Amino acid sequence: MSSIWGNMLKISLFGESHGAGIGVVIDGLPSGHQLDMSEIEKMMQRRAPGKTAWSTPRQEADQVEILSGLYEGRTSGTPFAGLIRNTDTRSGDYSNLKIRPRPGHADLTGMARYQGYNDPRGGGHFSGRLTAPLTFAGAVSRQILASRNVFIAARITEIAGISDLPIDYAAPDMDLLRGFVDKPLPTVSASAAEAMQQAVLKAKAQTDSVGGVVEGVIVGLPAGLGDPIFAGIESRLASLLFSIPAVKGVEFGAGFQTSRRQGSQNNDVPVFTKNGIRMQTNNSGGADGGISNGMPIVFRVAFKPTASISKPQQTINLETGQSEELIVHGRHDPCIVPRAVPVVEAAAAIFALDLMMEAEGRLTAFADVD
Amino acid sequence: MSSIWGNMLKISLFGESHGAGIGVVIDGLPSGHQLDMSEIEKMMQRRAPGKTAWSTPRQEADQVEILSGLYEGRTSGTPFAGLIRNTDTRSGDYSNLKIRPRPGHADLTGMARYQGYNDPRGGGHFSGRLTAPLTFAGAVSRQILASRNVFIAARITEIAGISDLPIDYAAPDMDLLRGFVDKPLPTVSASAAEAMQQAVLKAKAQTDSVGGVVEGVIVGLPAGLGDPIFAGIESRLASLLFSIPAVKGVEFGAGFQTSRRQGSQNNDVPVFTKNGIRMQTNNSGGADGGISNGMPIVFRVAFKPTASISKPQQTINLETGQSEELIVHGRHDPCIVPRAVPVVEAAAAIFALDLMMEAEGRLTAFADVD
Amino acid sequence: MSSIWGNMLKISLFGESHGAGIGVVIDGLPSGHQLDMSEIEKMMQRRAPGKTAWSTPRQEADQVEILSGLYEGRTSGTPFAGLIRNTDTRSGDYSNLKIRPRPGHADLTGMARYQGYNDPRGGGHFSGRLTAPLTFAGAVSRQILASRNVFIAARITEIAGISDLPIDYAAPDMDLLRGFVDKPLPTVSASAAEAMQQAVLKAKAQTDSVGGVVEGVIVGLPAGLGDPIFAGIESRLASLLFSIPAVKGVEFGAGFQTSRRQGSQNNDVPVFTKNGIRMQTNNSGGADGGISNGMPIVFRVAFKPTASISKPQQTINLETGQSEELIVHGRHDPCIVPRAVPVVEAAAAIFALDLMMEAEGRLTAFADVD
Amino acid sequence: MSSIWGNMLKISLFGESHGAGIGVVIDGLPSGHQLDMSEIEKMMQRRAPGKTAWSTPRQEADQVEILSGLYEGRTSGTPFAGLIRNTDTRSGDYSNLKIRPRPGHADLTGMARYQGYNDPRGGGHFSGRLTAPLTFAGAVSRQILASRNVFIAARITEIAGISDLPIDYAAPDMDLLRGFVDKPLPTVSASAAEAMQQAVLKAKAQTDSVGGVVEGVIVGLPAGLGDPIFAGIESRLASLLFSIPAVKGVEFGAGFQTSRRQGSQNNDVPVFTKNGIRMQTNNSGGADGGISNGMPIVFRVAFKPTASISKPQQTINLETGQSEELIVHGRHDPCIVPRAVPVVEAAAAIFALDLMMEAEGRLTAFADVD
Repeated sequence: MSSIWGNMLKISLFGESHGAGIGVVIDGLPSGHQLDMSEIEKMMQRRAPGKTAWSTPRQEADQVEILSGLYEGRTSGTPFAGLIRNTDTRSGDYSNLKIRPRPGHADLTGMARYQGYNDPRGGGHFSGRLTAPLTFAGAVSRQILASRNVFIAARITEIAGISDLPIDYAAPDMDLLRGFVDKPLPTVSASAAEAMQQAVLKAKAQTDSVGGVVEGVIVGLPAGLGDPIFAGIESRLASLLFSIPAVKGVEFGAGFQTSRRQGSQNNDVPVFTKNGIRMQTNNSGGADGGISNGMPIVFRVAFKPTASISKPQQTINLETGQSEELIVHGRHDPCIVPRAVPVVEAAAAIFALDLMMEAEGRLTAFADVD
Repeated sequence: MSSIWGNMLKISLFGESHGAGIGVVIDGLPSGHQLDMSEIEKMMQRRAPGKTAWSTPRQEADQVEILSGLYEGRTSGTPFAGLIRNTDTRSGDYSNLKIRPRPGHADLTGMARYQGYNDPRGGGHFSGRLTAPLTFAGAVSRQILASRNVFIAARITEIAGISDLPIDYAAPDMDLLRGFVDKPLPTVSASAAEAMQQAVLKAKAQTDSVGGVVEGVIVGLPAGLGDPIFAGIESRLASLLFSIPAVKGVEFGAGFQTSRRQGSQNNDVPVFTKNGIRMQTNNSGGADGGISNGMPIVFRVAFKPTASISKPQQTINLETGQSEELIVHGRHDPCIVPRAVPVVEAAAAIFALDLMMEAEGRLTAFADVD
Repeated sequence: MSSIWGNMLKISLFGESHGAGIGVVIDGLPSGHQLDMSEIEKMMQRRAPGKTAWSTPRQEADQVEILSGLYEGRTSGTPFAGLIRNTDTRSGDYSNLKIRPRPGHADLTGMARYQGYNDPRGGGHFSGRLTAPLTFAGAVSRQILASRNVFIAARITEIAGISDLPIDYAAPDMDLLRGFVDKPLPTVSASAAEAMQQAVLKAKAQTDSVGGVVEGVIVGLPAGLGDPIFAGIESRLASLLFSIPAVKGVEFGAGFQTSRRQGSQNNDVPVFTKNGIRMQTNNSGGADGGISNGMPIVFRVAFKPTASISKPQQTINLETGQSEELIVHGRHDPCIVPRAVPVVEAAAAIFALDLMMEAEGRLTAFADVD
Repeated sequence: MSSIWGNMLKISLFGESHGAGIGVVIDGLPSGHQLDMSEIEKMMQRRAPGKTAWSTPRQEADQVEILSGLYEGRTSGTPFAGLIRNTDTRSGDYSNLKIRPRPGHADLTGMARYQGYNDPRGGGHFSGRLTAPLTFAGAVSRQILASRNVFIAARITEIAGISDLPIDYAAPDMDLLRGFVDKPLPTVSASAAEAMQQAVLKAKAQTDSVGGVVEGVIVGLPAGLGDPIFAGIESRLASLLFSIPAVKGVEFGAGFQTSRRQGSQNNDVPVFTKNGIRMQTNNSGGADGGISNGMPIVFRVAFKPTASISKPQQTINLETGQSEELIVHGRHDPCIVPRAVPVVEAAAAIFALDLMMEAEGRLTAFADVD
């Protein structure tokens, strides 16, 4: 386990925030798929830092060098490795983290896990920067899924308690879903986006941070994917979503709300349509008994507020054995949620491609892709 | 994957609700642990059907025959297999499920997954009955954990929107946690339990069902367990919790609430105590960066209302191609939540034992267990 | 790992020689395949003890009770579990093994692995009896492969240094291969079989044992199966073959002989034929670079002589700390090789089905099987 | 699976012979180990091309850039990634391989596996160059094992049918084993080495190639490591050894010879010694029932002659559909065996470290390494 995920498609992440670089090996990609590198670059840039007022000012081009697995513009099918060099590292900022661990961060647990030998600079392997190669792997997976008519989107449903409008995922407006990718704060309601932005800027001004919720959707998966018990859709997608730093909750369909309903309200009723069997509602989020039912897979991911804040906090000094005040220097996002949107999409894409390959195999499924 | 879970400890479930039997193979158990079978039996009976007014009247002794892995009363270390015979099966009740799939159930998705060849009787392999061998595996794991001073408890925090009181998991009252096991509806507040019971009985009278939330806690895990990225504590425990039928949401620590907070409120501040480094609060639920921080692991699991209800519902008839009314016969729980409590404990125990074995290995960790 | 093997198809073995029973859970079988139980029974009987002069006189019917995964005579696709009860156990025979470990057996290593808590009776989980559920899993897999025109055979090429004639696996005589299943000592040369039988009976008369070599072949796999590097055909099949007790060597194609050849002799030359591209020779054993080339997969498996012999041997007494003479009582095979033939076939079948499912997936590959 | 191997320690290889680079991600390394880079470099150079008359003249420095996992000279415990840039690539040499596949190579099977989209230059991902990052991973693993008193060596026992003298692995001469690392053709007998060298040079002069056998040994593993059935020592080590290109056979201890012996000859007799229980002989190769018995793990690996030879051969032309003569240009080893020696050591080291970590875990085993 550890930094490897997947079954037919395996993702292996490596790197530290302030080391030579970060990257990913994608093992098991179907061969012969022509990659649109500008599309991949676009998705990388949605996650990249330094783009907006609410993002960390750290400047990273996040250019991916493809080391292997691409031949004459197409996936070769052998391991596909991408490397992102770290460029704008200021490790001096972090020099005292080994003595004064940041509250809410992995400084203490990293030391416990690795007996103090892990790289503490910028959080090391625990840094949110590791979501860059994850996003890259997702961008590649998503293109292959697109050629199979599987579409993935994500939006912000909450920041700092401010909610966006609901979407009816029994019959989603595909144009609405397609439009999210072009919005800096992807929401249905423009005024909600505006209020969210104000809340983020206010937290920034207070040298504090805020959290939020990202909702993702996978449209176009056929019914019958996934496995019962331990390898159901929720189990597998949740395991990947909880891998994204700062995630503290995951729910599918109506999620926690279902626990407050009666069965007669919550059960999704199947009907015959010209597109085959569909559910009238999508409270289950597209999976029953862990298996896809042909409806959009819908899920929400709760992100805690960024742990790294410049506001003075109490922590311990491991040298003196005393509590003391800490002001975290360095460059951080007052709200990670906007940059998390493409990361959630990436996780969904990796998950969905692995799932489809289990069902369809690798020789037949993608032979005539382009 | 599929019906196998784990890394150092692997759990393989099998069986169908109305087949010959259901069971589990536990691979990788540490050897030499003396099992208290009456404790295991007690945990099995908390999950077993037919015990209370709010449980299905199906009578199943859920006696586990141990087929292998136990020698002279101790775990041998080789695969430990347990078999539960199905006894009270009334398959006639389910004869029309292949034609009229139950809304909210895996009838349709099971047919899609297995091209119609899966056993439909009582939900087959998708039945909640499969939680019996899971509970058995958890009861075994829990005893081994107990000898290592790891304690697991669970309680109901919500049924039908009725909430129990909160618990401070920064410094939990261990007597309170230990007492939950003896309550039919384990809550802090007796009046909340009474109100929950009334809500369940009311739903039963209406031939409907209600959902709820179970909160679990693992006390005593050392700091430094788990892996970064894809094998963090949340990823792995969530993948197991979502394997329990009817689960639609999982959160850790303050969970979805953290998304509505500021960093300065949400960060857990470390302090030196006579028991070593502890956090003043437990908003993270015991894991930072996917690694245990020495605080209790706390999580909540949302259960949807039981999908099988006798109240008339609409569904489709796969023979006629028309919609029609369905009344689900058979015997079902108006609320699965009380019986889910030991199942959640079992999942937590299996997870925790696997996690500890990765850190401590198998030769040294359990050599002088008893 | 441990007692679980496979990727798309997972096999989980359990049980001890003198415990309640032994069995297997097969996870991931394609659904909808109608099983011919008499064919399975026939394969089980080829492995079963007590049938010939050179087999242990232990009488075991090796009747498999199917606990799950079979519905109306077809595979349901959910975990398929089979249980074989142990009946003819005489545990008194083994009472002193914990004190006087048998040379060449797993008595000492089992104690070291499990700190002495493993079941020592009849070798416990290390017993050759565990090949019964493996054979069962292979018999099921083989039927599904047969419906895909994949054929598996095995024969004895050596016993006690007596060799059978070679077979040209570039263009094998399929009738010859099909005939092996009906021979008690499957060889090309009847006189070799006769000499082998005499050698076994002679060893038996001397209260000693002899070893031998089994050759297996998988005919009909398409080119392009397998993965490079760590998941090549040789890696995966060898890992399964070395799981069979008493196996000490595995080679593919011309195997160790290739190391004594020149490249110009050993390279298999491709040619166009009416059946597509074929190799003129089959020195590679059907795999180049770990990937199938469309030729028969050919391999040989070396079995050491049965470790349990009644001839007096030296061993240690763990109580006295002294060496002493040991006469192993109990019932054993003077040569395990004949009974190992169906076990080798079973391993090949499990391997081949897993391999095909990776390439073809599960939904499309087997949808119209019968 | 595919290009990932291991359980507690996972190795993920990537790269193609003539792409940007080749590399490895090692996931799960124990933290805190100080690496001696010059030792690693020395092992890399033993495998590197262009050093001797019998190696390919391709010049590759095989300098490894460490991308992650090393902090202040010690393993951080997080994924350890190494990258080797390809420098001396002459892809023009290989331009016709897609039309005229080389006999005995993976050209045809690679095309079948990846539908023709894989990188054909220099064999792509199937190239022996991928053994460079494998050797690197082994060099790292070996140092950690050395700090635990586990020692690994390998030598050549055969080239072109010329045999070296046997070694008694019941009580091996450790100085002899330690000396192999300094010999260009590591053998016991200097005259055997001389004869082997002549055979290789003769094959080279004939534009042909020869094969051979490498013997490896792991000294110092405690008894009780490994798992029964599918995860025994032989199963796991063989799966890794068969991953090395050109390997066609693997045997343990007396291997295929055991099949020609009687049980009374072959059984290793345990005795009490001042170093605890030892076997008087080592026919089993250090593993009984798949579990280590405390004796050296001994194995032999058969390498076929290099498939790429300049001698004219027949092959097919995929454009014309006709057979034609092929002369393989490019730069190749007339015998791969000498350069395979450190690769076999590397595989053994990766295997042994994974095995020890399963038994001892990661927190306790390596806490006070240096």
